[in-house]
Amino acid sequence: MFDYKLLAALAAVIEQAGFERAAQVLGLSQSAVSQRIKLLEARVGQPVLMRVTPPAPTEIGRRLLNHVQQVRLLERDLQGQVPALDEGGLPERLRIALNADSLATWWAAAVGDFCASHRVLLDLVVEDQDVGLKRMRAGEVAGCVCASAKPVAGARSVALGAMRYRALASPAFIARHFPTGVSAAALAQVPAIVFGPDDLLQHRYLVALGVEGGFLHHLCPSSEGFVRLTAGGLGWGLVPEQQVQGELARGELVELLPGRPIDVPLYWHHWRNGGELLTELTRQLTRAAGRWLVPFS
Amino acid sequence: MFDYKLLAALAAVIEQAGFERAAQVLGLSQSAVSQRIKLLEARVGQPVLMRVTPPAPTEIGRRLLNHVQQVRLLERDLQGQVPALDEGGLPERLRIALNADSLATWWAAAVGDFCASHRVLLDLVVEDQDVGLKRMRAGEVAGCVCASAKPVAGARSVALGAMRYRALASPAFIARHFPTGVSAAALAQVPAIVFGPDDLLQHRYLVALGVEGGFLHHLCPSSEGFVRLTAGGLGWGLVPEQQVQGELARGELVELLPGRPIDVPLYWHHWRNGGELLTELTRQLTRAAGRWLVPFS
Repeated sequence: MFDYKLLAALAAVIEQAGFERAAQVLGLSQSAVSQRIKLLEARVGQPVLMRVTPPAPTEIGRRLLNHVQQVRLLERDLQGQVPALDEGGLPERLRIALNADSLATWWAAAVGDFCASHRVLLDLVVEDQDVGLKRMRAGEVAGCVCASAKPVAGARSVALGAMRYRALASPAFIARHFPTGVSAAALAQVPAIVFGPDDLLQHRYLVALGVEGGFLHHLCPSSEGFVRLTAGGLGWGLVPEQQVQGELARGELVELLPGRPIDVPLYWHHWRNGGELLTELTRQLTRAAGRWLVPFS
Repeated sequence: MFDYKLLAALAAVIEQAGFERAAQVLGLSQSAVSQRIKLLEARVGQPVLMRVTPPAPTEIGRRLLNHVQQVRLLERDLQGQVPALDEGGLPERLRIALNADSLATWWAAAVGDFCASHRVLLDLVVEDQDVGLKRMRAGEVAGCVCASAKPVAGARSVALGAMRYRALASPAFIARHFPTGVSAAALAQVPAIVFGPDDLLQHRYLVALGVEGGFLHHLCPSSEGFVRLTAGGLGWGLVPEQQVQGELARGELVELLPGRPIDVPLYWHHWRNGGELLTELTRQLTRAAGRWLVPFS
């Protein structure tokens, strides 16, 4: 068998984003943690992490982390069957990557009861829909909500539904920039709001209108900040419809060109051998997501 | 004079978080960008960045980035005086770090008009209040909203006011866990919600109630997600009062122990030689922040 003390040290350094916090969590000195990582590296014959801030796993480090993650979930199943094995009585911590817009809208309502009844604590990692899978591949999370259908090796994906986005702006913004009505060409000349370098929604919207190339934009990597900037008249942007039902009803946000939503499919990715807890969460998500997401073909 | 082509390459690699995107932005091949970084390193006689993902500046790299940031702001002033120097007519991009809760609440309302009238595009970086200054020191941002008063070398800080947090939970959560009323000891036994490893608000709240040590918690690095998890009954947490006025009025969130807010002071940090634009933004922020923040002593 592997030496799980060493693997647990590696997992802690990555999860806690540093040796100091890892040491606190493990109840060890920092040099003891360092020592364990070095021992692990001596065993596998190569570095398991890069000493940067925060520490990042190497290729082999990632495979080890994957393994630790899955072993932990299997241990939980066993503890369910053999309660004497339950070591601390602490709830399980489930590390999950999801896109900011899911977290800002349907996620809590979909999993709230599940977490309470299964005594699960969430460790959420926010990633743009197109990059969350990297965390799966890196073995840093047990599951992930993202826009890609294709599972990484060892994982499964299920379709949850699609998030409906509408291109919105404040009435003041529209009055200032489009006194004679919104046109596609004019839209490319006024500031948009973009979540981050991986957010291509605004770009797709303009392309669908026949506008190619770059456009002015603010960068705002926060779902709620995005809505606030839009409502504050700083720019236009694609916002999840269900996040701004109040603003739409009150007329604080207005659709630029009515009837042109963009639906972004969302998939739930989870380890194939992730144990009963992940299977149960998967069941809950597929059951519940339809209440907040729209079907897609 | 320095060779600003080389410095601009360094800035682009850091700002775009990679050589590929930097090359796109600069309109160069990736190997040309690499070449410029190597030339720069030959000039200064040591590495300016660490080749990790995303690339990170070395100590000397940081100093160079600071310098580029400030030169750009000074160039803008000069362009204002000598319009012929204006090269592309593109709006200035101001990179600013701020805490997620400011971005989710008052920030857009405070700077919206400023950005429109000064033709400024924002490049916002979300950092927990205690770590935003790292970005200033690293020369990655022109300004920063955070909880620390002490400016980094070359910068100034001004007090904006304090954000008022209240410890909230859903009525269902309170009914389930505190059928006979909320007590400090019982609070430590039920899940809290914590923004991230640097968020010590929940910890401070418990300490003020006489509860020391660890406590169960979800981790949720999203301001809006934090509110959703709280309203969804997953845990209790300290939430900015102004972010949940609707939820409080409708009774969807309830204060655990009435009348025990925590006020977190917020400071605006900006480069001392940051040019007229930053000075103007500073004036706007100090004027406007009082509308949303509470005074603190």
